[in-house]
Amino acid sequence: MNKIGIIGTGLIGTSLGIAIKRSILKDIEITGVDLEPSFSKQARKMGALDKVGRTMVEVARGSDILFICTPVMVIKDVLETVGGELKKGCLVTDTGGTKLEVMRWADMFLPNGVDFIGGHPMAGKESHGPCNAEPGIFEGKAYCVIPKTGASTQSVDALVKIIKSLGSTPFFIDAAEHDSFVAAVSHLPFIVAASLVNTTSNSPQWGDISKLASTGFRDATRLASGDPIMHRDVCLTNGDSIVHWLTQYVRQLEHIKELIGSRDSNRLDELFETAFEKRGLWLSGLNFPESIHRKDVPSVPNFSQIMFGERIANKLFKAKGNQSKKDDG
Amino acid sequence: MNKIGIIGTGLIGTSLGIAIKRSILKDIEITGVDLEPSFSKQARKMGALDKVGRTMVEVARGSDILFICTPVMVIKDVLETVGGELKKGCLVTDTGGTKLEVMRWADMFLPNGVDFIGGHPMAGKESHGPCNAEPGIFEGKAYCVIPKTGASTQSVDALVKIIKSLGSTPFFIDAAEHDSFVAAVSHLPFIVAASLVNTTSNSPQWGDISKLASTGFRDATRLASGDPIMHRDVCLTNGDSIVHWLTQYVRQLEHIKELIGSRDSNRLDELFETAFEKRGLWLSGLNFPESIHRKDVPSVPNFSQIMFGERIANKLFKAKGNQSKKDDG
Repeated sequence: MNKIGIIGTGLIGTSLGIAIKRSILKDIEITGVDLEPSFSKQARKMGALDKVGRTMVEVARGSDILFICTPVMVIKDVLETVGGELKKGCLVTDTGGTKLEVMRWADMFLPNGVDFIGGHPMAGKESHGPCNAEPGIFEGKAYCVIPKTGASTQSVDALVKIIKSLGSTPFFIDAAEHDSFVAAVSHLPFIVAASLVNTTSNSPQWGDISKLASTGFRDATRLASGDPIMHRDVCLTNGDSIVHWLTQYVRQLEHIKELIGSRDSNRLDELFETAFEKRGLWLSGLNFPESIHRKDVPSVPNFSQIMFGERIANKLFKAKGNQSKKDDG
Repeated sequence: MNKIGIIGTGLIGTSLGIAIKRSILKDIEITGVDLEPSFSKQARKMGALDKVGRTMVEVARGSDILFICTPVMVIKDVLETVGGELKKGCLVTDTGGTKLEVMRWADMFLPNGVDFIGGHPMAGKESHGPCNAEPGIFEGKAYCVIPKTGASTQSVDALVKIIKSLGSTPFFIDAAEHDSFVAAVSHLPFIVAASLVNTTSNSPQWGDISKLASTGFRDATRLASGDPIMHRDVCLTNGDSIVHWLTQYVRQLEHIKELIGSRDSNRLDELFETAFEKRGLWLSGLNFPESIHRKDVPSVPNFSQIMFGERIANKLFKAKGNQSKKDDG
């Protein structure tokens, strides 16, 4: 029997528990705990846990594999609290959105004989808490894996096995690179969304303006409804990378502002065409590794035809040709 | 029999045609035309048109009510071309995303005896072209109505009747206010999305970065897959309002950048909490007029409980109390 512990049974911890219990993995007992007692009770009710632990130390002591699924800043406290209580040979992993700081804390607080592997499932929803948990959120997603120096092959294999059982694809990556990459595609987007809400709703006319806000505004701001604490913690632990991308982003906005100011039709056209094509290429899975590319997604140009119609599909198809050539050379 | 003409049978024109044909309105014949002949054929095949016209002049001549559903900049050419060919007493309307310029063109090119009413359905999809048309996109949405000075009550009533038959709610508004409001909630969001795609995909490491982009990035950038020509035309005809909002937005981003730079935990927390709550309030329909508020959407706090869980629902519920008090005062 493998004993898995989950500290933090919010959206991710609970989804993870349910997904593992429903997976092909057998003989697993999951014990979980949350600072908010109603969260661990809810997680158990939803089938994520076999048992609710009384304290995180109790959960840590009993675990062969311990998942820490709290907001990033809490991971530090958890590691400090449970570091001295872990079984020799056990594996500790986390699901935090930033990795450099987490790896540093693991270095500080975990004893020899305990393996730490940083983890980050590229999965989420705008809602949070255990009642919004869904085991399917991991399916078809990348799951970043960052083994601490000296982690045993056995521990890495064990985590990879669990990740695959969730339907995710393990993605080995360096912590610094991880933090820079997710700053671009996860952290910048939630800052963009929250800023869009704050900019518009700050207006004294928001009461009227908001009546015209429709599905476009809803989707563009979806990430602003993510957990504020999670967002804050990500900013506190990945500030440098985020500031780097924010600077690039503001530069891009200033550029558009100039083009709009001078009514530069051609270059505005070019700019929106570029964004259109780059997103189309990304969506059509060209930049995804084969392993993540789901089999039921039709290939370009078929997929693009469904999304964009034939004219655009042909354009994307040509762009794909160029892209492949570039990749080959 | 009412003869309706549709010039421009892309996503909106075709969706409109299908929605009218399936509505409770009877004895309506719709003729349509598009610069791209395959578009009008497709629109007819999908049930949006009874007949395909040969030229826009032919369609205009035969219409009691003429919808111009082209990109904004094309509306000018259409008005100029058909202005002298319209029946006396006919109603001309459009579906363009900006209104000040359109109203000015209508002034310039339409003769006395023709009524013009600017229109703007707050409906859309990121995909375009007639094959993506859906009659349901108008349902539950605001539809802006801007009658030109001197438009007859009869014409206004006729348009309102059609708008209601689509399931939309007519929203009377001044052209300048319209352009400023939609710059905030429609135009700023697509610029934000396109800039996010261009900033990230400009990176030489985009091939790897994009592997970590997930549902958050997908939704935050959805509007970047809208029609580039439509986006360009909106920027060309609503530049001043957009630049105003872009300036506010960049100011907000610089503010966040500072807070992140100084690791200001409290104020970052506050900022994300504000965005979270403001979006929650908007979503829960508090800012929508009753008429747009769909009956099957549960009220706060029930709706919020589904979305956010109980703790947050209570918070929103308190915020609602304050909001109502403010509105009353």
